[in-house]
Amino acid sequence: MNTWREPVLANSVRLTGDGVEILDRRVFPAERTWMRCGSVEEVAKAIEDMVTQSSGPYFAALWGMVLAAREAASLEVEDARAHLERAGARLVATRPTNDQPREAVHAVLSHVDGQTGEALVAAALGGARAGDERYRSRSAALGRHTAALLPDDATVLTHCWADLYLVELVRAARDSGKSLAFYCTETRPYLQGARLTAETLAELGVDTTLVTDGTGAAVLSGGGVDALVTAADRVTMDGHVVNKVGTLGLAVAATAFDVPFHAMVRAPDRLAPTAADVPIEYRDGAELLGTGSHPAIRGHYPAFDVTPPRFVTTVVTDRGPFDPHELNRYHQEVS
Amino acid sequence: MNTWREPVLANSVRLTGDGVEILDRRVFPAERTWMRCGSVEEVAKAIEDMVTQSSGPYFAALWGMVLAAREAASLEVEDARAHLERAGARLVATRPTNDQPREAVHAVLSHVDGQTGEALVAAALGGARAGDERYRSRSAALGRHTAALLPDDATVLTHCWADLYLVELVRAARDSGKSLAFYCTETRPYLQGARLTAETLAELGVDTTLVTDGTGAAVLSGGGVDALVTAADRVTMDGHVVNKVGTLGLAVAATAFDVPFHAMVRAPDRLAPTAADVPIEYRDGAELLGTGSHPAIRGHYPAFDVTPPRFVTTVVTDRGPFDPHELNRYHQEVS
Repeated sequence: MNTWREPVLANSVRLTGDGVEILDRRVFPAERTWMRCGSVEEVAKAIEDMVTQSSGPYFAALWGMVLAAREAASLEVEDARAHLERAGARLVATRPTNDQPREAVHAVLSHVDGQTGEALVAAALGGARAGDERYRSRSAALGRHTAALLPDDATVLTHCWADLYLVELVRAARDSGKSLAFYCTETRPYLQGARLTAETLAELGVDTTLVTDGTGAAVLSGGGVDALVTAADRVTMDGHVVNKVGTLGLAVAATAFDVPFHAMVRAPDRLAPTAADVPIEYRDGAELLGTGSHPAIRGHYPAFDVTPPRFVTTVVTDRGPFDPHELNRYHQEVS
Repeated sequence: MNTWREPVLANSVRLTGDGVEILDRRVFPAERTWMRCGSVEEVAKAIEDMVTQSSGPYFAALWGMVLAAREAASLEVEDARAHLERAGARLVATRPTNDQPREAVHAVLSHVDGQTGEALVAAALGGARAGDERYRSRSAALGRHTAALLPDDATVLTHCWADLYLVELVRAARDSGKSLAFYCTETRPYLQGARLTAETLAELGVDTTLVTDGTGAAVLSGGGVDALVTAADRVTMDGHVVNKVGTLGLAVAATAFDVPFHAMVRAPDRLAPTAADVPIEYRDGAELLGTGSHPAIRGHYPAFDVTPPRFVTTVVTDRGPFDPHELNRYHQEVS
């Protein structure tokens, strides 16, 4: 139990000699299928089609930019730069609410400075590796800061799949002698909680209980949950937590039943002063249907919701916990 | 649009010459399969297995008691009575949280008074028919009282499947010139909202939008919903609303975002002074799984949750709307 072994999902995007391979989270864990993407466009399409999600698009964008550099290796310097920037814009546009692909693209572009040919590819690779390491070390810090907020034998309710943040939370809690138990929501329609969160927690040997999305409030009202902990796809500077749809309802219920809600994000987004600055992605309503229903029924499927700061106890970042009303302090501190 | 035609689900349990036929709600509307139950035991099993639910068990219990009378037709008076009572107890025990089967059994038993043979069957049939009519007329009253609480062009969020109460609400609103639109939650794990509510509303020509169970709070926070309206499987005398799990979270969110919550029940339950008097049914956790998940993952599946009166605006009954803190008035009034 004390030996740490990375779960499968901690390394679910990989660069190969001729492309990027992405573990298909739509069918995991029932099937372990890797989708091979031979071009930036195929990587972008895979992100849009939810082949990967949560932190997956970050890593896919990193390695996708290395593909772009390979594609640009035979071009002159200006054309190569233009190709990389187009590739970056395509990857950033895949899913508008989460800002991680933007960060990944920046990590690679900031390492490229006028190289061409093999030097360009090497520079991009260096940027992607640095981005990979930075993401993992910041996630580890986030996990430690979050673990520190929890009591020794905490029962935690979580929603959707907080990916490396959750993995690092479990690792940090274990390292500090804390034993966590989790309730996971199924998280319709892709059942990412049931398939990714519950599976990975069980893989890590964590006590794991699955509930329907509608059961969260009942579990919170029953007194058996010490904290609601989720990732955030984005946190605005005024303390709004943007995360997988369903988070808002759980946060409101946690507030009503005096359970703290800790939202994990590496950093609040300086480019998003308010919730109005974050576009909410709407998925195709048909993703909800497929039960043979009447053709007149519409599906309404925002992929994310926005939790106002009055329902958020703590925004946990790589620099520690913050009151959601005092997020400006994050960027004022020396990193 | 103005011609009223009963939806399929309004008549989904029927007595035949040799049994009770129950429309299988687990596969509706993709399939329209009637399950034939030749004995009381088979009716009870069908209720336990969720072949029918919501008001379905009420009607199944009514007609199941007629089957019991047929089974007892050759017995002496005392044995016949004992057989009917055993059958009634079996039907009442099928699902402990909803008190409707108890009422159905009572409707039949109270019509039987020492008969045997064909007279016994005729008495049971009379009781069942009276129970059927009474249920429908009370549901119609409930629909009228609920429609009166809504604005003219109201958008309503509902959860799970309120069955005849919902059908009668739509009818009463239409009769009074109101045009309702609905958001329906999918209601995992059986997707009763997606399959039964959305399908029936669409069948009735009502504007219908389906959302995941996690989307309710986002829809309520957006300002586009005029009321949350659900049925209640039970309402205690101190104003706790017991209904399909998920109701609590929606009620808490409705309260947080100033949307009224109207819970429909024919009558508060005099036999349940407090929430502690209502057993909460737990279904097999395996009903949540089946996604190829890790064997160590437990499923936790209370079928119902309990909404305290502080999150309930109105308990609507067949005698009109009541403040959840003043339900004693229901039984003080002359019916």
